[in-house]
Amino acid sequence: MSMQPLLINGEFRAAANPTGSYHSTNPMSGEDLPWSFPYSEWDDIEEVLQAAAGAVSELRGAPRQLLADFLDTYADRIEQRTDALVEAAHLETGLPAPTRLQSIELPRTTDQLRQAAAAVRARSWTQATIDTAANIRSCYGPLEGAVVVFGPNNFPFAFNGAAGGDFAAAIAAGSPVIAKAHSSHSRTSQLLAEAALEAIGITGAPKGLVQLIYRFKPEYGYDLVADHRVAAVGFTGSRSGGMRLKEVADRRGMPIYLEMSSINPILILPGALSERSQDIAEEFFTSCTMGTGQFCTNPGLVMTMAGAEAETFVEQSAALFDDGAAGVLLNRGVSEGMDESIRILTRNGAEVVAGGAAADAPGYFYENTLLTVSGEQFLANPQDMQTEAFGPSSLVILAKDADQMAQIIQCFEGNLTGCLYTDSAGADDELYDRLAPQLRAKVGRLLNDKMPTGVAVTPAMNHGGPFPATGHPGFTSVGIPASIRRFAALYSYDNVRQHRLPPELQDRNPTGKMWRLIDQQWTQDDIGA
Amino acid sequence: MSMQPLLINGEFRAAANPTGSYHSTNPMSGEDLPWSFPYSEWDDIEEVLQAAAGAVSELRGAPRQLLADFLDTYADRIEQRTDALVEAAHLETGLPAPTRLQSIELPRTTDQLRQAAAAVRARSWTQATIDTAANIRSCYGPLEGAVVVFGPNNFPFAFNGAAGGDFAAAIAAGSPVIAKAHSSHSRTSQLLAEAALEAIGITGAPKGLVQLIYRFKPEYGYDLVADHRVAAVGFTGSRSGGMRLKEVADRRGMPIYLEMSSINPILILPGALSERSQDIAEEFFTSCTMGTGQFCTNPGLVMTMAGAEAETFVEQSAALFDDGAAGVLLNRGVSEGMDESIRILTRNGAEVVAGGAAADAPGYFYENTLLTVSGEQFLANPQDMQTEAFGPSSLVILAKDADQMAQIIQCFEGNLTGCLYTDSAGADDELYDRLAPQLRAKVGRLLNDKMPTGVAVTPAMNHGGPFPATGHPGFTSVGIPASIRRFAALYSYDNVRQHRLPPELQDRNPTGKMWRLIDQQWTQDDIGA
Repeated sequence: MSMQPLLINGEFRAAANPTGSYHSTNPMSGEDLPWSFPYSEWDDIEEVLQAAAGAVSELRGAPRQLLADFLDTYADRIEQRTDALVEAAHLETGLPAPTRLQSIELPRTTDQLRQAAAAVRARSWTQATIDTAANIRSCYGPLEGAVVVFGPNNFPFAFNGAAGGDFAAAIAAGSPVIAKAHSSHSRTSQLLAEAALEAIGITGAPKGLVQLIYRFKPEYGYDLVADHRVAAVGFTGSRSGGMRLKEVADRRGMPIYLEMSSINPILILPGALSERSQDIAEEFFTSCTMGTGQFCTNPGLVMTMAGAEAETFVEQSAALFDDGAAGVLLNRGVSEGMDESIRILTRNGAEVVAGGAAADAPGYFYENTLLTVSGEQFLANPQDMQTEAFGPSSLVILAKDADQMAQIIQCFEGNLTGCLYTDSAGADDELYDRLAPQLRAKVGRLLNDKMPTGVAVTPAMNHGGPFPATGHPGFTSVGIPASIRRFAALYSYDNVRQHRLPPELQDRNPTGKMWRLIDQQWTQDDIGA
Repeated sequence: MSMQPLLINGEFRAAANPTGSYHSTNPMSGEDLPWSFPYSEWDDIEEVLQAAAGAVSELRGAPRQLLADFLDTYADRIEQRTDALVEAAHLETGLPAPTRLQSIELPRTTDQLRQAAAAVRARSWTQATIDTAANIRSCYGPLEGAVVVFGPNNFPFAFNGAAGGDFAAAIAAGSPVIAKAHSSHSRTSQLLAEAALEAIGITGAPKGLVQLIYRFKPEYGYDLVADHRVAAVGFTGSRSGGMRLKEVADRRGMPIYLEMSSINPILILPGALSERSQDIAEEFFTSCTMGTGQFCTNPGLVMTMAGAEAETFVEQSAALFDDGAAGVLLNRGVSEGMDESIRILTRNGAEVVAGGAAADAPGYFYENTLLTVSGEQFLANPQDMQTEAFGPSSLVILAKDADQMAQIIQCFEGNLTGCLYTDSAGADDELYDRLAPQLRAKVGRLLNDKMPTGVAVTPAMNHGGPFPATGHPGFTSVGIPASIRRFAALYSYDNVRQHRLPPELQDRNPTGKMWRLIDQQWTQDDIGA
């Protein structure tokens, strides 16, 4: 059977010298799907890099409008292919076709692309900053090179290397994207790339604006990141994989944005448990098992105060976890990872109170899993106890008192999110005031009375956080315009003649509505108006 | 003779177990100055780290106002000690006391501190971003740890680890600073730290807000950067030193901001040379020899088109370099570095047309040095030809034509600045349009018809640039508020109860004037007003 083609320089073509192949797998059955994909030799990657460099040159002279047109058109073409995309993604990931893929993830993906297009048109993301007296002007602008995006397994559309958040941000910033298809949904990625190529054709964007490659040996991944034609990297995936790429990028002082792991601690304070234990258990169960628990913001750790009410909460939760149908995991690796994580947690003293193993079914179905551990046991080995179990699994810590809760929070690694549930009458306020500042410092997004799954695409979002959740605490991968600025450089112009300035920095406001920081005031006015 | 004390946790005290000592040196005579400073054992550093952690805790509950008061008071106390500071800095660095240290650098330093104080009061640097419909709100806020600042040799006040730009930015962001005194001006740093301690006393700021340490063995530097109580690092210095610290910081995903090297290419296009060769030669000479050439933005590379006019320009420049008095370098190391760099350049085909050696005088005086090289020779070994000669030295490339100029620009490493001189009638416009975009991509600040020395402290400044000038192309070390955000984390609040939000994110504008991005519009209004 022939292997699926790569997208290189505006054409789908066979790998030049494939060193092997792999299949997409249907995780609901464990069986191979009909599509086979190549492992590329370096030849393919070299061609991709050359085409990307060509696209960088072309973009240098092109109006920014072109990128907005491309992003909007691409969103349209994705919508036109909804049925095929949803079908492929469902087969490859097992994620529910109508409820998740079609109704939530695909619209979110096209929304991100269109928000990015709107940001390109509005130009405000560039944060044009002008000192009229000194005649010094600065703004963010495109990097001089391609952005490589390594997408994760868990969002075949919304974080796809060829269509997701990092992709949209990098294109909006002005760089071509080299997308590495994830092996868990290579066919979906290929269909997206087909839509992207159509959008390139329709809008006349550079042929090398979007390219798609599949697998290759790890060394080539490092060589790709080390290549001078690459100017930044976006990576969502495992900590070990991310750290290896980071080392290569860091050595050449190149920006790399990583999202690597997070267990998203939830603190349920005593008043909240007294007030609405069953409600919180239901919210917790829904959030923890959504997408079979394979969300970056899955609530993998819950902490509450040991006692009768906590026992009730654990029973209520365990009943829900037990009653809920086993969900399907993305692939064999995720299932094996669950086994391994649960082994580490139980070896360190955690007790399984619901689930705990792969379901007795074909494919990669897994039981909803709940574990508990005492605060003391947690503190005996806090590192291992924070092992991420990527799937429908959570560990409840039963802390003996407020001091121990505080001590445990001090051991938390950096996470994307952290939540506090408190009562409505104010009984928890004192404890909140003590614990929230500690938790705040460990997470990118702090929530009240709300589970962390569901990452709204809004300018106020922070889908980021301290290491090891990401590689830098100042950046977010979701939320425009901040996500775009990651893939940009800061450019200052000192005494540069007016007509030579980029439109964003000329006296006249280029859109009439763009926000600029002129002499320390944000304004939409022209200079000298 | 007794060794000078360190500033640890609000007290000046002797090093606990010094492993040795060093002296400040007067570069004008080469002789030791009366002050001796300790090499610290780890004991001192551990105490500093503990005190810094204490300051982090204290700051968590303190009003931001306190930091503004500290910064303003510190600026006042520096001014009160002007005479002593200028005298010490002059003795330790040889920089001219009245013209440079007193009239320019000290006022610049206090201005930076006061700008930082104003930014803390105005709060707009936090870029509060609010989505009212989703009730998600984000802003930049303090890191959870200290900032270590390694200042450079060339600005005893304005980039001093205990008073300069990185210092002001880190304090304004809300972190205590651990300052490593530079060996070239340790006494100056100590006097600054005395003023800082007074300001701590007057304002009631945490004792560990500013601490000062001197030398220690390199391993301790890495251990310091690796310590969990440190949350970020600012470094200005050599590429080799910066890269070693970067590796340690990168491994733990901790922000490190580096300014490492820059030769600041100047392109003089043919029309400009025809029009005003002598004027440009004078600007060039002044800029290149200011501060004895020891500026990060020193014009160390000039490119022009070979021919009669270029010969004239080189002659005019060489005459100025020859006639100018030899300046004094900061220390023996800088002088030896000049020798070594000139050796590398001449070995690769550059010709010395003025100066080229240490002056025949006591101390570290060095001749103003001008070299030339053909475009061809430059291209034969572009890496070596970009060796930074840190001092009053510049290399003029005589390119044979526009194509060769373009080819040479492609070989440029990342730099802080790049300039183009063009004629006023438009004869150079076509060549500008070709070369400027290429140069633009290689530098942080692009100038027209102006030399790069003189880094205005304005929000529109970018004192940054692509690697290896710095470690990330998106950040600037000069220019408030952007320099502050380097030492901050992005914090998002999702559904957090109103009274638990930081003041910046509550419905009511905390100052009545703070700029916030509310529902995608920058405004100074309250929410619901």
